[in-house]
Amino acid sequence: MVDIATRVYNHKWKIDPIVRSLIDDDFYKLLMCQSVFRNRPDTTVTFSLINRSESIRLAELIDEGELREQLDHVRGLSLTRGESTWLRGNTFYGKRQMFRSDFMEFLEGLRLPPYQLEKRDGQYELTFEGRWPEVMLWEIPALAILMELRSRAVLKDMGRFELQVLYARAMTRVWEKIEALRELPDLLIADFGTRRRHSFLWQDWCVQAMIEGLGQSFTGTSNCLIAMHRDIEAIGTNAHELPMVYAALAEGDEALRRAPYDVLADWHEEHDGNLRIILPDTYGSSGFLERAPDWLAGWTGIRIDSGDPAAGAEAAIQWWRERGEDPRQKLVIFSDGLDVARIIELHRQFHGRVKVSFGWGTLLTNDFRGLVPGDGLAPFSLVCKAVAANGQPTVKLSDNPAKAMGPADEVERYKRVFDVGEQVTEKVIV
Amino acid sequence: MVDIATRVYNHKWKIDPIVRSLIDDDFYKLLMCQSVFRNRPDTTVTFSLINRSESIRLAELIDEGELREQLDHVRGLSLTRGESTWLRGNTFYGKRQMFRSDFMEFLEGLRLPPYQLEKRDGQYELTFEGRWPEVMLWEIPALAILMELRSRAVLKDMGRFELQVLYARAMTRVWEKIEALRELPDLLIADFGTRRRHSFLWQDWCVQAMIEGLGQSFTGTSNCLIAMHRDIEAIGTNAHELPMVYAALAEGDEALRRAPYDVLADWHEEHDGNLRIILPDTYGSSGFLERAPDWLAGWTGIRIDSGDPAAGAEAAIQWWRERGEDPRQKLVIFSDGLDVARIIELHRQFHGRVKVSFGWGTLLTNDFRGLVPGDGLAPFSLVCKAVAANGQPTVKLSDNPAKAMGPADEVERYKRVFDVGEQVTEKVIV
Repeated sequence: MVDIATRVYNHKWKIDPIVRSLIDDDFYKLLMCQSVFRNRPDTTVTFSLINRSESIRLAELIDEGELREQLDHVRGLSLTRGESTWLRGNTFYGKRQMFRSDFMEFLEGLRLPPYQLEKRDGQYELTFEGRWPEVMLWEIPALAILMELRSRAVLKDMGRFELQVLYARAMTRVWEKIEALRELPDLLIADFGTRRRHSFLWQDWCVQAMIEGLGQSFTGTSNCLIAMHRDIEAIGTNAHELPMVYAALAEGDEALRRAPYDVLADWHEEHDGNLRIILPDTYGSSGFLERAPDWLAGWTGIRIDSGDPAAGAEAAIQWWRERGEDPRQKLVIFSDGLDVARIIELHRQFHGRVKVSFGWGTLLTNDFRGLVPGDGLAPFSLVCKAVAANGQPTVKLSDNPAKAMGPADEVERYKRVFDVGEQVTEKVIV
Repeated sequence: MVDIATRVYNHKWKIDPIVRSLIDDDFYKLLMCQSVFRNRPDTTVTFSLINRSESIRLAELIDEGELREQLDHVRGLSLTRGESTWLRGNTFYGKRQMFRSDFMEFLEGLRLPPYQLEKRDGQYELTFEGRWPEVMLWEIPALAILMELRSRAVLKDMGRFELQVLYARAMTRVWEKIEALRELPDLLIADFGTRRRHSFLWQDWCVQAMIEGLGQSFTGTSNCLIAMHRDIEAIGTNAHELPMVYAALAEGDEALRRAPYDVLADWHEEHDGNLRIILPDTYGSSGFLERAPDWLAGWTGIRIDSGDPAAGAEAAIQWWRERGEDPRQKLVIFSDGLDVARIIELHRQFHGRVKVSFGWGTLLTNDFRGLVPGDGLAPFSLVCKAVAANGQPTVKLSDNPAKAMGPADEVERYKRVFDVGEQVTEKVIV
């Protein structure tokens, strides 16, 4: 039976929006936004799109008009009543009223600020400049739009059955991954795949498959909209953005060296429990842990987001022991370039020694590798980063030089200040 | 948007009918029915279900009440006006008014006769006895119902995503087969998979995939309902049923020896062109061809349905040469237990030497091998055959003793009369 109304409604689409809601965003962006709104609301920050996979010439694949339509659509979004109710009324990490009233009022009134878009050398230069708590909310929608427009560009000439079989293959692949993960005892795993997803509908499908296939082992999704629709946990804590901006704002080497801890001191005041997760790698994990104040060792866990993940976790275990903490009570969240083989390997190595958890991103929500000719749907490394704060450039070193960013002279200065020596380069997959 | 009317309609289903139309049937059954209606209308024939795969205990898998509901539903069907119009108005094999008016009137008035159903030893004994042109139309619906009820029994405890992934895998498999077939030059292939299909909707999907994937190489489907809906050719000629019943009715060895040629003499009078296809194997292909009258060598082609298919085709080529015919003008239709590897092999061996065509059955429309635990959806060898005619048992020898049927003493008599020597047993896959 054809539903005529639906068919006519579909005919009327001007665009098929990619980002349909202000909370089609990672939960940790909202948490960080609240922290920024409280602690550094007037900082002027510039976010900029960076395509680390230069061979993917986005400006040749994606029509500029379509990109502008999608970005303009996001600028028209505002928090709906139901979304506001969900944020205000929900329990996150066991805590009610996670979001303060003043922040909710700010969010309810928010429209995303303008963007600047230019083409250069086959790439888009897309930047967002403005007050930090406003522009920071562009990061995830901008990435999701570019990723999905790229998918659409590759898919647009395919036939109906080709498409059906493409998704059949991709579904089979996701499900086989889930079947492999099912074998792991006490597995804890979440969806972190919003930013580089194949598409919104596909991420939503992947989340449903995780729910059906993993049950209690699936701890939730970073995507607030999907968490709301599917009535599951919204997951996330904090990201490099905070220490990067704090560091850029620091005046002098001493303040710079202290900046990453200042971030966590602010965070410590606001959050407890599972939200107290150390992200140590912004300026080199090993120096960060060595110089860390003792109160940080009391935090719930650590997130390993670059470098050799096993080495990173071993270093954290060693560090907790040195600080008199029991590693078995600590949470280690792996979140860098995960796929099933690595998850199984890390789980085998650390299960029972610490509480292990995984934040599975791009290779959950965008593994279309090998499924179209020329591998045109393979995921690629697109990021949207804070590149300047109050006119000062930001720097990230990470535990993998391939993920480093910032002007060369500033990178050198940061390396000196944070006493970062030789680092091992690991291939950035996604 | 939920279509409430559709949802409510779905709630109201008493049964989800498997056979939805009297023409959800193989085209050759209708052709043969017309021939029988003209030449032997008053013969009393018994059709009986035979499960050659005894390890599949159908009566334990399938609920008797559900089976009866489905069979009763078929008894309630009659030709719709649109179906009648399609049969009367369509061009089949280039010929208009393939079906004569007296036959169409018979078909328009037809309801299928009663069935007898009993359970024995974990199997169903399902028989249809009555006037040949009526009971013969039970064969395909009975098989399709049992096949699909078995599928449903295996699927009924699966979750929503498990089901989606199961079909995703099966679709991927069919599409990969089609992609492999696409490479064959001048391929001609049809769907012969109605009788042992996984389900009606699945057969319909497979046909659509063949249309999209193979274009002109896909010559049509044996299923009239799908041919009508999809506006493609209905395909088929004649089957073992005709010589088996003619043989059972023959009085004395001389008449028995002549019976298979009597069938084709009747057919010769009624049909020409692509409908003149020899099916030689009912009582051994080699003797059949040796003893065949010369006019049979003038027929359009041959269908190889048992024994070693390459050997069968080589024998036919040799026979045409001996009778002064050019094999390159002849059509060879392979239809026994085909899958892609064998199709490719046979195509390679015979392309250019004869006109090659394939009737692809069970492993097109029911290849779920290995897709559920215990391989519970693997196809199996279920047939529904004419076992008696006017009280006389029927016999089939075939070119493969594993496909032979009939009482032992009659089999011996037929072997003597048709001078059938040693035969090679081939494993019956489906």
